[in-house]
Amino acid sequence: MATFVSQVRKEGLDKELKGLAESEGVSPAKLARLICAGRVVVPRNSTRANVKPLAIGEGMEVKINANIGTSQDISDMSEEISKAKTAIGSGAHTLMDLSTGEDHGSLRRYLISNLECPLGTVPVYDAAIEARRKSGNMADMDEEHIFSAVERHARDGVDFLTLHAAVTKRTVEALARSDRILGVVSRGGAFMAAAIINSGEENPLYSNYDHLLDLAEEYDFTISLGDGLRPGSIHDASDGPQFEELLVSSELVKRARERDVQVMVEGPGHVPMDQIESNVRVEKRVCEGAPFYVLGPLVTDIAPGYDHITGAIGGAIAALAGADFLCVVTPAEHLCLPDEEDVRQGVIAARIAAHSARIASQGGSEWDDSISRARRDLDWKMHKERSLDPDEFDRRRSSRPSNDPSVCSMCSDLCAIKLLEEYLKGESR
Amino acid sequence: MATFVSQVRKEGLDKELKGLAESEGVSPAKLARLICAGRVVVPRNSTRANVKPLAIGEGMEVKINANIGTSQDISDMSEEISKAKTAIGSGAHTLMDLSTGEDHGSLRRYLISNLECPLGTVPVYDAAIEARRKSGNMADMDEEHIFSAVERHARDGVDFLTLHAAVTKRTVEALARSDRILGVVSRGGAFMAAAIINSGEENPLYSNYDHLLDLAEEYDFTISLGDGLRPGSIHDASDGPQFEELLVSSELVKRARERDVQVMVEGPGHVPMDQIESNVRVEKRVCEGAPFYVLGPLVTDIAPGYDHITGAIGGAIAALAGADFLCVVTPAEHLCLPDEEDVRQGVIAARIAAHSARIASQGGSEWDDSISRARRDLDWKMHKERSLDPDEFDRRRSSRPSNDPSVCSMCSDLCAIKLLEEYLKGESR
Repeated sequence: MATFVSQVRKEGLDKELKGLAESEGVSPAKLARLICAGRVVVPRNSTRANVKPLAIGEGMEVKINANIGTSQDISDMSEEISKAKTAIGSGAHTLMDLSTGEDHGSLRRYLISNLECPLGTVPVYDAAIEARRKSGNMADMDEEHIFSAVERHARDGVDFLTLHAAVTKRTVEALARSDRILGVVSRGGAFMAAAIINSGEENPLYSNYDHLLDLAEEYDFTISLGDGLRPGSIHDASDGPQFEELLVSSELVKRARERDVQVMVEGPGHVPMDQIESNVRVEKRVCEGAPFYVLGPLVTDIAPGYDHITGAIGGAIAALAGADFLCVVTPAEHLCLPDEEDVRQGVIAARIAAHSARIASQGGSEWDDSISRARRDLDWKMHKERSLDPDEFDRRRSSRPSNDPSVCSMCSDLCAIKLLEEYLKGESR
Repeated sequence: MATFVSQVRKEGLDKELKGLAESEGVSPAKLARLICAGRVVVPRNSTRANVKPLAIGEGMEVKINANIGTSQDISDMSEEISKAKTAIGSGAHTLMDLSTGEDHGSLRRYLISNLECPLGTVPVYDAAIEARRKSGNMADMDEEHIFSAVERHARDGVDFLTLHAAVTKRTVEALARSDRILGVVSRGGAFMAAAIINSGEENPLYSNYDHLLDLAEEYDFTISLGDGLRPGSIHDASDGPQFEELLVSSELVKRARERDVQVMVEGPGHVPMDQIESNVRVEKRVCEGAPFYVLGPLVTDIAPGYDHITGAIGGAIAALAGADFLCVVTPAEHLCLPDEEDVRQGVIAARIAAHSARIASQGGSEWDDSISRARRDLDWKMHKERSLDPDEFDRRRSSRPSNDPSVCSMCSDLCAIKLLEEYLKGESR
C-alpha cells in the first residue's frame, strides 16, 4: 500500500492538503516538497477517516500536544475525556493518550472515534504491563509483547506512535558509564533499557526496525522516535547518553525516509536556557531537518508545581530556535497525575511560548496589534474577546472592578492611556 | 554630606558591606570598584537605620522587586501590608509602594519602619494627585508639586525613587511623530508628558536636574530613571521614542555619577523575544554599565491574565543577557489591582526567571542538583523541602496521592526512576 508520502510524491497535494498549505501560508508545491523531504510530517493513520490533517515541521506554525491518560492510581475514563476536550478547547493541536490504567485501550479508541485531532500513544507501556501480567516482571517484555502492542495501537487508528527504538545496547552502555544524577526519567525509555539489561539482547524495535517500518507502512502511522535517555535534570543536559541516542535516531530517520514512512524526533527534557538553541540545531543537523518534538524543555529543576512556567520559558526559546512541536508540561509535572485545570494551564502556557516565538521570528502579529489597539481605545469588550483566555479576563475584571468601567482598578482615573490620549490629541482644556 | 559612593571611594567597604560582597561571591575590592564605577547600586536612604544592604548590578545575583500599593478604587492598607509580607516571604528582594489611594503616605511610612528591605516609590504620582486636588487637573503639575513630593518621600526614608527625568520636550515630540499603537503606558511618564504638553515648559526634573541631585545627595537615595516612554505593546518595541528617552537617561546617569549619586535605569515593557538581548546590550552600552531594571519584559500582548508567564519568559531572557533587576509582573497586569495571591504568583514566576538565567550563565547549581538527587532517591521529603514552594508541592501531592507513597500518581508503580535504579544496580532478579 502506498504511504502518504509516496502518494504526495506521485500526485502532489489533494484539495484538503492544499487548504492546509494555505492555512500555513506556504504554497502547495512547497508543502509537498517539505513532506517528501521528511521535513514536515502530517500524522494520520490510514484507517482513520475523521482526522483533520495537521502539518508539523519546518516553516509550519509550531504545534502543541497535550498528554492525557489514566494511571494505575487514578483511572477515571470520564475525567480523561474531559481533560481531552479541555485541552483541545484551550488550543492543543494533538493529544497523546498515555494511559496505563484500567481502561485497556478503550480511552484510545473513544478518542479516535470522537475527536478530529491526530492522536499519539506509547505502545511500549502496554507491552511492559502485558509482560508483567504474564511473568510478574516488566523487564521480561520481549519482541512479541512490543510488536503486538504496536500493531494493536496501529490497528485502532493511532496517528503517531512514540517508539523508543534508539535506546540500544550501545546507548544503555553509555548510560551506565555516565555521571548522570537521574539515569532515565522516560517511562518508555526505562522499560526498554530494563528489558535490554534483563535479557542481554538488543532492543527489538532497533534490531527488527524493518518490521516496524512494515507496520508503519501498512497503517501509515508516523513514527515519533522517543527520547528515552532524555536528561531528567539540569545536571544531565546535553550529555553523552542523550547524544548517543540522538545519533541512533538520525540513522533511524534515514531508514524511515527511505521507505516513505513519516518520522519525527523527540527531544529533551530538562535543559538550561543556554543549551536549548544548540540542542535544536544539533537535532536539525544530524537528523537532516526531521521535525523536532520537545518535552518542555524545563529550564530549572527547582520549581515543582510551576513547571508549566519553567516549560514555557524553555518552549519559547526552543520554538524560536526551530523546534516544531511542543509537548505541554502541566503544573502537576513531577508531583501527581494532572487534573483538568492543570491541563488547561499547561496548554495556555505552551500556547504563550509558541506564539511568543512566532511573533519574534516574524516581526509582530495582527493578533497582538489588535489587542493593543483595544487597550489604547479602552475597548474592554474587544480586549477580552481577542485575549487568549476571555473567561479568565472576565473573572479578574469582575472580581476587582473599578468604579469607572472605562478603566481598571489598578490605575483607576490615573490611567496613563486615558490621560495621554487626551493630551496628545489636545482634547483636554 | 558624603554620599554612600563617596564614602566607599574614600574608605572602602565596612564590615556589613564586606559581608554583602561575600554573599554575592565577589571580593570586597571588586564590589567597591563596581559601586564607585556606578555599575552596582546599593539603595539605602541615609535616614534609614533598619535597611539591609542589597547590591543590584553587574556580576551580582539578579534581584526581584514586587510592586504593591493602594489604588483610587481599592485602598485597603491592611491588604497592602499583607501583600508586602507575602512578596518578601516569597523571595522578593525589594518593594515598591505605588500607592495612589487614600493612605496619603502612611503605607510608605509603615513599610519603612517595619521592613528591612529597600523600598522604592514614584513621587510623581503624589505630585499629580496634589495638582489635581488644587486645580482639578493633573497636568497642572509643576516644579513645586514635583520637588515637594520628591522631598517628602526622601524625608520619609525611601531608598530608591523612580523619576521620569528623561521624559523631555524632545522625547515627547518624538512620541508625537511616532506610529505607536499605545503612546504612553507608564503612569509617571503620562503625568510628565501631559504636564509638558499642558505647560509648554520643559520637565522640571530635567531642567532642574541639579536640584534633584542635591536632594539625592542630601538623603542619599538612589535615582531610578523611569522608563516613561517604554513600549506598551509588541508593535511599539524598540522604537524612536524609547531610544530617545534612553539617550537622555544616559546623559543623566553621567551627571548623577559625577556627584556620586547612585542611579539605575528602568527598561521595557512589551518586547518580542528577539529584541530583548539587544535592548539590554544597548542600555549597558549607552548608560556605561548602569544597573538595568526591567519591567517584565512581556513577550506578547495576547495573554492578559497570564502576564506573569509572558513576563517570566522575557525576564529570563533579559536576565541571561545582563539585566540586573526584574520587576514582578502579576497575573492581574492590565486587568485589575493584584491581590495577595497574584503578588505571590508573580514573585514565584520572576524568581524562576532569575534563577533559570543564573544557572544558564554559571553552568548549573547545587540547588537544582540537590532536588534532582532527591528525585532520584524518591526522597519526597527532601524534594519538597528544597523546592521553590514547598506548600504548593504538598498541596498537589496530597490532593492526588498514589497508593504507594514512594512514587506519584502519574506513573505509579511504572515509575521510570524506580525501575531503572533497580536494573542499573542489578538489584532485580
